[in-house]
Amino acid sequence: MTGTTVPTTMRASVLLKQGVVEMQERPVPTPGDGEVLVRVGSVGVCGSDVHYYKHGRIGDMVVTAPIVLGHEVSGTVVSVGRGVAESRVGDRVAIDPQVPCRQCRQCKTGRSNLCPFMEFYATPPFDGTFCDYVTAPSDQAYTVPDSLSDESAALLEPLSVGLWAAHKADVGPGDQVLIAGAGPIGAMCAQAVRARGATDVVVTDFVDSRRERITSFGATRALHPVADAEEIAALRADAFIDCSGATPAVLSGIGSTRGGGTVVLVGLGAEEMPLPVQLIATREISVTGVFRYIDTWPRGIALTTSGAVHLDDMVTARYPLEQVEDALNADSDPLSMKAVVVVNAPEGN
Amino acid sequence: MTGTTVPTTMRASVLLKQGVVEMQERPVPTPGDGEVLVRVGSVGVCGSDVHYYKHGRIGDMVVTAPIVLGHEVSGTVVSVGRGVAESRVGDRVAIDPQVPCRQCRQCKTGRSNLCPFMEFYATPPFDGTFCDYVTAPSDQAYTVPDSLSDESAALLEPLSVGLWAAHKADVGPGDQVLIAGAGPIGAMCAQAVRARGATDVVVTDFVDSRRERITSFGATRALHPVADAEEIAALRADAFIDCSGATPAVLSGIGSTRGGGTVVLVGLGAEEMPLPVQLIATREISVTGVFRYIDTWPRGIALTTSGAVHLDDMVTARYPLEQVEDALNADSDPLSMKAVVVVNAPEGN
Amino acid sequence: MTGTTVPTTMRASVLLKQGVVEMQERPVPTPGDGEVLVRVGSVGVCGSDVHYYKHGRIGDMVVTAPIVLGHEVSGTVVSVGRGVAESRVGDRVAIDPQVPCRQCRQCKTGRSNLCPFMEFYATPPFDGTFCDYVTAPSDQAYTVPDSLSDESAALLEPLSVGLWAAHKADVGPGDQVLIAGAGPIGAMCAQAVRARGATDVVVTDFVDSRRERITSFGATRALHPVADAEEIAALRADAFIDCSGATPAVLSGIGSTRGGGTVVLVGLGAEEMPLPVQLIATREISVTGVFRYIDTWPRGIALTTSGAVHLDDMVTARYPLEQVEDALNADSDPLSMKAVVVVNAPEGN
Amino acid sequence: MTGTTVPTTMRASVLLKQGVVEMQERPVPTPGDGEVLVRVGSVGVCGSDVHYYKHGRIGDMVVTAPIVLGHEVSGTVVSVGRGVAESRVGDRVAIDPQVPCRQCRQCKTGRSNLCPFMEFYATPPFDGTFCDYVTAPSDQAYTVPDSLSDESAALLEPLSVGLWAAHKADVGPGDQVLIAGAGPIGAMCAQAVRARGATDVVVTDFVDSRRERITSFGATRALHPVADAEEIAALRADAFIDCSGATPAVLSGIGSTRGGGTVVLVGLGAEEMPLPVQLIATREISVTGVFRYIDTWPRGIALTTSGAVHLDDMVTARYPLEQVEDALNADSDPLSMKAVVVVNAPEGN
Repeated sequence: MTGTTVPTTMRASVLLKQGVVEMQERPVPTPGDGEVLVRVGSVGVCGSDVHYYKHGRIGDMVVTAPIVLGHEVSGTVVSVGRGVAESRVGDRVAIDPQVPCRQCRQCKTGRSNLCPFMEFYATPPFDGTFCDYVTAPSDQAYTVPDSLSDESAALLEPLSVGLWAAHKADVGPGDQVLIAGAGPIGAMCAQAVRARGATDVVVTDFVDSRRERITSFGATRALHPVADAEEIAALRADAFIDCSGATPAVLSGIGSTRGGGTVVLVGLGAEEMPLPVQLIATREISVTGVFRYIDTWPRGIALTTSGAVHLDDMVTARYPLEQVEDALNADSDPLSMKAVVVVNAPEGN
Repeated sequence: MTGTTVPTTMRASVLLKQGVVEMQERPVPTPGDGEVLVRVGSVGVCGSDVHYYKHGRIGDMVVTAPIVLGHEVSGTVVSVGRGVAESRVGDRVAIDPQVPCRQCRQCKTGRSNLCPFMEFYATPPFDGTFCDYVTAPSDQAYTVPDSLSDESAALLEPLSVGLWAAHKADVGPGDQVLIAGAGPIGAMCAQAVRARGATDVVVTDFVDSRRERITSFGATRALHPVADAEEIAALRADAFIDCSGATPAVLSGIGSTRGGGTVVLVGLGAEEMPLPVQLIATREISVTGVFRYIDTWPRGIALTTSGAVHLDDMVTARYPLEQVEDALNADSDPLSMKAVVVVNAPEGN
Repeated sequence: MTGTTVPTTMRASVLLKQGVVEMQERPVPTPGDGEVLVRVGSVGVCGSDVHYYKHGRIGDMVVTAPIVLGHEVSGTVVSVGRGVAESRVGDRVAIDPQVPCRQCRQCKTGRSNLCPFMEFYATPPFDGTFCDYVTAPSDQAYTVPDSLSDESAALLEPLSVGLWAAHKADVGPGDQVLIAGAGPIGAMCAQAVRARGATDVVVTDFVDSRRERITSFGATRALHPVADAEEIAALRADAFIDCSGATPAVLSGIGSTRGGGTVVLVGLGAEEMPLPVQLIATREISVTGVFRYIDTWPRGIALTTSGAVHLDDMVTARYPLEQVEDALNADSDPLSMKAVVVVNAPEGN
Repeated sequence: MTGTTVPTTMRASVLLKQGVVEMQERPVPTPGDGEVLVRVGSVGVCGSDVHYYKHGRIGDMVVTAPIVLGHEVSGTVVSVGRGVAESRVGDRVAIDPQVPCRQCRQCKTGRSNLCPFMEFYATPPFDGTFCDYVTAPSDQAYTVPDSLSDESAALLEPLSVGLWAAHKADVGPGDQVLIAGAGPIGAMCAQAVRARGATDVVVTDFVDSRRERITSFGATRALHPVADAEEIAALRADAFIDCSGATPAVLSGIGSTRGGGTVVLVGLGAEEMPLPVQLIATREISVTGVFRYIDTWPRGIALTTSGAVHLDDMVTARYPLEQVEDALNADSDPLSMKAVVVVNAPEGN
């Protein structure tokens, strides 16, 4: 390991068990072969972080030991492991949090997001990024331009979800897209489909203020699922992207998808849903979902830098590392678009 | 209209209402612009014919007036309408039974099977082919070589379902494919995926004799859904094609599909099924269905003629036109693979 | 035929032979089955019109009899043929000038632009649109919103070339695209790739004023082919679109395309070009071209209406029908972006 | 490193410089992290080996230092490096000779064959497999079933070229495919397109005996480029695959490709060819090439084991390691289909 001086210990916000967060002092990790050590700048709070905090698990993934949460992360390279050019030190980076095996058939055929041996920040048993320093494979730490703030760089992760969903939905120029849910992921999807040329982007949400706000983040129409049910039912969208996880929204959305159209499930709700398989078949609708993303950081950086997508405006609250628990709780307010934990302020770089 | 002499009336087997079939004398139809008049040779009996006969409806499509069933059809061109070369008279043909509008956006973008203005034999209110003569657009009446029997030519229609399902499943060389249901459509799908290079074709069925038989029609392994449940669960198929319409088979099949794989619903059962949406999303499985087919007659003719697919062996019973009702009832025997109504024997050509 | 009163004769600007244009009085055509009669509004002047005028031929297509040129056309429906809803009368429309057979295998599989039986305005022996009235299949006459001017509606045709080229180039969000040639088609391609999310759109041209202008029509960088040769050679574009027809530009562009990237030839120059086949193979670059377009009017209307693409600013000169020859000659000025023949002014609707 | 006993030195057939081959004693290599050490069984002789031997270079890749040739290789795992399960020892394997960086954007998006940092056997400065032992990444050493001979396992490499070409050509069931060149790669392509369902596989070659032989390796028609020129010109193939590298064959093949069809350049001849770009554009033909392959070993093993492809019959000559030079010279006989160097006979395993 080479690079600038880094301390030997650091602060870490640790989820001890369901509902219990504690600040700890931990050793700074050492970058392995091909890795960089990154001083953390900003970390976005994700629904999955909140879910682990409140429920202690997501499906089969259970918090059985203390774990550091957080995976939407930007920062600055402070040292490098063997095989990494020392010139990387000082790079401001946004991190794709996936560490696939790179050797299985999924990895070798361009589906590394489905690698069964994936390691991922803040997914048990792997620690996340609510701490001062993290390691990452050098190729997954993407250099960002100065014009991109630490916060926007961190939010490239949720933007990646939107970009990958739009990719899976195969959205094209002039398309009509229906999106259920006007939260942060709905906003990312709306911006992503606009960036691909969709011209009619209909977003549904029950909350008035969220519907109002979403028109600043890609939506061309914002509808109420019940009050505007007729207008929604009349759609024949080229693609429907669900960011609500709500079964009624999914059923409604499938019904509003044109023959040969695509349905992408992003928001996870119930494990099972009673889907209209005959309708799916007779309309040859393709129903799929997204699990993380591939090759979205280069695209996200280009889109954000060019102004096609804007991320800074999405941050509605900021917290220091000591207040991670507040940040996790802030999410219960539907008016919160995106909370960010500022681990180390930019001045500190 | 020009061509050889044809009578003015013909025999037609008419479904008067649910469960009631009657032979009638009807006028021979006149081919319109761009159409050919075809003297019917063989007509395969399809599950949809049986369903209309037994239930008087399929979903929203209800038999409210007498209708001629049958749509898997071959025959010989006996006259042509305006704009069709007279040289077509005498052509032995297999008919793609779809008459799309050719003008809507679906038609113009290569998805004519999803045309909302489609006319289709034996789908109310359009008469089918259990009769001596039918008209068809000339371009949908595909000339078949002499080496192809009338029966095989008729069975190009169910083969088309298999080819389209295999296309939707995006089956490639060396793939593993799981198929639920060893009936005629399962057999067509098995042959179709083999023709695309699948090397491990696993077909499941409860009936012993059907499992045994299917290994002659494309399957490399035939498994019992319950007795072999463990072997089925261990699969990670590149594609799963359901030809059973049975909810448990669909759920089992989705569980046996690899990450990034494809699920194609061919057999229609319940309108809704409780699908494992979280599994679909985290494995990025794509679930879709088939509704008819596109461009499958040229491919089916080439495959059958070359020997890559064989259809004659699939016919397990033959009936004259007067016994359409027997043919419709024959289907209840699970050992029946395919019943064919021989409307006019080849000697008559 | 039904509809509002139309005269029996009309004005037509006729190319008698190479270089000789004459105004004639001709009978107004009658819409056939499924057709509409359109009173022509604006007609854009295309390079192919100019080529027929100046050379009397384009490749194998030779002007052997008087022909009406013009195919970029908008107007208003004034009557309809059999089978078309009379409610179409009064529709302001932009016409996709393709009349494919709709029956061949190309048409039936979504490649109707390659139909060998295509009829096309202003392609011998078919008359074009430099006249008061033209017929078109109703489904090819797309209704445009009031917000779209007659001129913009006419320019949906060259925009379609750009949209189809961008489709063939498979441009995605965040892509780098190199375009050779800053003329009207280059501008259409630049706007089209931007609409698909390209963020680095590099356009090359020898003419200073064209380079300057193109940054208002989609380009993010405008480079000189010789002075900026080094910067161009350093590119590794995801796609290269040639709108110059110049062999050196094509060779340079292929060299600037990344491994696995796409090259689309839009501008036609020499019949043959000495292409670097070993480079194409070792980089697995895909080289193709465009011939017209499919499904681009609905997309073009949506993009133009939404503001993602702007067409009005592209018109640099307007001519009445009597001055078609001036319009055809105007093209020799490289500063001319797009000349439009205003056959019937909007007030006349 | 763990495993069975292996010697410290081995035999290696070394190309000292253009035209000069020498047997040497060399140290047995040590498998690195994630690697296996393989005792070489059979090695196929490739045209590239012959080219290096006869010309000392292939394009920019020059033999400036002694190099071991050979890259079509099978063998047995004798020891493993760190991180590899010891249970792999004893595995009979076929090796995908590509060692990509796994970190660049090409690698991460499923195009690792285009990785600019690729290491590849027998490509300067990397040694190949005409020797007793080689190392390989464990995931690139695919276990083969006992039913597959050492020779067939080695020939999975040239089969991979055929499979990848057929993939790039997007060959489907019932397709017509034209292949120029009936040598070993033409035979691999013919078998590969047959495995994907092509039913009309036309192979052209000047040599009578090669035309005759190719009908046993996938071709359904074998034609003489000059004597059968008319029949070739009348084709409208869905895909054309050139395995000849001959400019006249490429030009003829492009002319015989249907609108919307695909041309894949496999055989490398001249650096540049005068391609008919206007024809390519007006027919929207896609011209590309292949550079190695991705994910072809699993498919090749499945196809060969299932009998869909047969490789053993392709071997026309066998040589011991001491006679590599004879094997390299054998290639000048056009009747030679495939020469194999048997480095260690199966009995020795």
